[in-house]
Amino acid sequence: MESLGYSLMQSLSLLFLVFSICAAATHSNNIPRLGTTRRTSQREPSQTTSSSSDKNFLTFYYTQQLDHFNYRPDSYTTFQQRYVVNFKYWGGADSNAPIFAYLGAEASLDDDLSSVGFLNDNALHFKALQVFIEHRYYGESVPFGSMKKALKNASTRGYFNSAQAIADYAIVLLQLKKKLSAENSPVIAIGGSYGGMLAAWFRLKYPHIVLGSLASSAPILYFDGISPQVGYYSIVTKDFQETSKSCYETIRKSWTEIDRVASRPRGLSTLSKRFNTCGQLNTSDDLKDYLEYIITEAAQYNSPPTYPVSAICSAIDGATVGTDTLGRIYAGVVAYKQSQSCYDTNEYNYPTETNEGWGWQTCSEMVMPIGIDSNASMFPPQPFNLNEFINTCKRKYGVQPRPHWVTTYYGGRDLKLILHRFASNIIFSNGLKDPYSSGGVLENISDSIVAVSTVNGSHCLDILEAKRSDPQWLVQQRKTEVEIIEKWIAEYQADLLAFK
Amino acid sequence: MESLGYSLMQSLSLLFLVFSICAAATHSNNIPRLGTTRRTSQREPSQTTSSSSDKNFLTFYYTQQLDHFNYRPDSYTTFQQRYVVNFKYWGGADSNAPIFAYLGAEASLDDDLSSVGFLNDNALHFKALQVFIEHRYYGESVPFGSMKKALKNASTRGYFNSAQAIADYAIVLLQLKKKLSAENSPVIAIGGSYGGMLAAWFRLKYPHIVLGSLASSAPILYFDGISPQVGYYSIVTKDFQETSKSCYETIRKSWTEIDRVASRPRGLSTLSKRFNTCGQLNTSDDLKDYLEYIITEAAQYNSPPTYPVSAICSAIDGATVGTDTLGRIYAGVVAYKQSQSCYDTNEYNYPTETNEGWGWQTCSEMVMPIGIDSNASMFPPQPFNLNEFINTCKRKYGVQPRPHWVTTYYGGRDLKLILHRFASNIIFSNGLKDPYSSGGVLENISDSIVAVSTVNGSHCLDILEAKRSDPQWLVQQRKTEVEIIEKWIAEYQADLLAFK
Repeated sequence: MESLGYSLMQSLSLLFLVFSICAAATHSNNIPRLGTTRRTSQREPSQTTSSSSDKNFLTFYYTQQLDHFNYRPDSYTTFQQRYVVNFKYWGGADSNAPIFAYLGAEASLDDDLSSVGFLNDNALHFKALQVFIEHRYYGESVPFGSMKKALKNASTRGYFNSAQAIADYAIVLLQLKKKLSAENSPVIAIGGSYGGMLAAWFRLKYPHIVLGSLASSAPILYFDGISPQVGYYSIVTKDFQETSKSCYETIRKSWTEIDRVASRPRGLSTLSKRFNTCGQLNTSDDLKDYLEYIITEAAQYNSPPTYPVSAICSAIDGATVGTDTLGRIYAGVVAYKQSQSCYDTNEYNYPTETNEGWGWQTCSEMVMPIGIDSNASMFPPQPFNLNEFINTCKRKYGVQPRPHWVTTYYGGRDLKLILHRFASNIIFSNGLKDPYSSGGVLENISDSIVAVSTVNGSHCLDILEAKRSDPQWLVQQRKTEVEIIEKWIAEYQADLLAFK
Repeated sequence: MESLGYSLMQSLSLLFLVFSICAAATHSNNIPRLGTTRRTSQREPSQTTSSSSDKNFLTFYYTQQLDHFNYRPDSYTTFQQRYVVNFKYWGGADSNAPIFAYLGAEASLDDDLSSVGFLNDNALHFKALQVFIEHRYYGESVPFGSMKKALKNASTRGYFNSAQAIADYAIVLLQLKKKLSAENSPVIAIGGSYGGMLAAWFRLKYPHIVLGSLASSAPILYFDGISPQVGYYSIVTKDFQETSKSCYETIRKSWTEIDRVASRPRGLSTLSKRFNTCGQLNTSDDLKDYLEYIITEAAQYNSPPTYPVSAICSAIDGATVGTDTLGRIYAGVVAYKQSQSCYDTNEYNYPTETNEGWGWQTCSEMVMPIGIDSNASMFPPQPFNLNEFINTCKRKYGVQPRPHWVTTYYGGRDLKLILHRFASNIIFSNGLKDPYSSGGVLENISDSIVAVSTVNGSHCLDILEAKRSDPQWLVQQRKTEVEIIEKWIAEYQADLLAFK
């Protein structure tokens, strides 16, 4: 069980949250519960050098303006935005050596610093400066004194959105380049998941600041009806189905079995015992939600070398002959969660910073309509109900979500038609086992807006720290990305001579 | 005097205001006075069909959100945004016939409807729908009930900026296309002067909504030190110098002559009489500012068939032998302003809607540093002093101008380096006699981001209504633009078949 390769799965702040919000909303008709990133305490000790403890990573703070798009007096409120710079490998301003800029996402920068290795792994080769910039309202980059205060009321959380965050990145990078007299150094933006969307949008909106973007596992098409609602859960299902038909069947039939047991006298107590839950289950949904979290998380972060989907299915399929459905599912939980004194079915719902922050973001702007179709999935049907979602968000936050804003501001529909003669230099990387790849860009848009997919990859693998154990397809994916970025930079350096 | 071709000069809401603010600020060190568009009462009766009285132009109102970039409760305030549609020539949604979208600028849409003829002149040829959209905070599209209320305090005017305005245009067009089931109809944006900047930026920021833009006389480079401060007045000077060396010399020496007379006992009274001013002059600056307004306006709108610069210079040069400098300048005023019972030197400073609105815009975001160098101009030196400008604006409006925001959000620096492999389909049209062409894009950026300049053209001529009297170079400029737009649309229609 130790070798589940679990740290990879935990390494990014998870878009996983999105689905969980939606699932929760459709399950219970209640205010959406917030998912969670894996708690740090559960993380395996890192086997590799961690950027966060590397003394070459220096922390800075920029006095950032709260509101870039208005000129109200309160727009001029500021906050301290954290960014971390590593000069070690930089070739310097004189040679216009590049700048790798990691765009923080819905979490503190700390986690990313220890897991996103793409920058450090390639900095020497590119003679690149590394910059990690924290997303507003997360980590140390929180306005109004604390996350609690910042999210407390509708006025203070109103500035917490992607357009403001991307403008922050633009401004931090401009001031840094100015400070370093590196105005001509090309910037390559790198981001994963929500951060990958930011990276792609950053290139589209600020081409004068970023030369190109590596957008890893960025589901920019999972908005406003562009991609089918059922995509996410269909891929989760396919991942399990392809791993083991019998495992898939066991999971598929477990939901009614759980409901059947729950409906018996003391049924919830029975379920609590059989799943060794830390507290007594209040409804069968508590258990089903917990299992859905585990199953989808395993699929999303189905990473080598251990592949948690395989580990779960091995346990489900490998249980002693005669073990019933619930017993097999429980074996899967133990395989995934490792041996614990008890299992906290509420684990994914704790009000972590990421849960709270991303909860707001999905309820305002990042409305990703993820639903479940029983035909295309092994899960109970849970169609996404936009009106219900909107009402829940309004009750919770007092303002109306804007489900069409992402496609209005950033586009996404007819991407090839729109972008193949406009824009350039974006890599959309995806692992096709990642359920979020169903909202990703999987075909080339043009010569320089390209899709780099791996059949066996999962969420954001390519931007994580390289390991000796990485399979060849992952090594090759990163190599392809490096070659593309090299081409962008070479072209830019030639243009610099020609045009400036 | 009747044939000064004056209506052309009056036809657009003038960017002219910008320079006047700066000039006034540097003159007096006071709060910047606001320039003015020419008053409607001064306009010649139109000789041509006016769109505003054409019954095919139908007026609509869209309930627009005040704040697109925040999710504060007050962001959800709405206002009625006016737009005007002409269906007459439209080929319809079934044939994906194009949509011409005129982007309103710093004035009521009414003026543009009667002067911007490019859409109507070419709609039949393109089978195009015509849409004119009014800019927020102008005309009938004013939030908070009235312009006075909207501009009254710092909170209500804070939403009055270009990023919000461009988002308005995006939203109006999306809803219109949806209403007409014309999602596949390509949109061509057209704008002049400030509206030309908006058109260019609209294509850059929202390529998924607009296929291409005709940005007429758009000084997108007159920001943040990209173009030299002295460009504007240098071209005004050159226009006069090239028209008549002696006229130029007369103007050049008039300023010290005015000061000399003013410094004598009852000197201001003398000047008032000699210039037949409606009120007694309070300072010689009142007269000098007035003359500067006239001279720069004549240069900016130096339109065929009568060319006001020539008219002024003919009067200056043609005065009776022995007429002194002031007499000659006064003859120029009369030639330009036509015979009036007296001349109102305060004429350009009345608090019109455009003056008030653009005054705010230049003091918040549209900071165009226009200064005067005595070497390169025939005017007294007035270097642009950014600190002074900022302080004046802060005193007036209570918030800090952001002189770097335009280049941060929209770019502009190293335009060819940045855009020749990014973006497409923008025409930057300029008349090289237009002082604002000094901040315009005058060289091709790529195959499809092109400069279309005319040596003899002035401000925004190409998008005004075509006239029989138009010179061949103007006819040719428009023809070139039409051909480029035809190419964009043909390419798009082919792509639509290929990619959708």
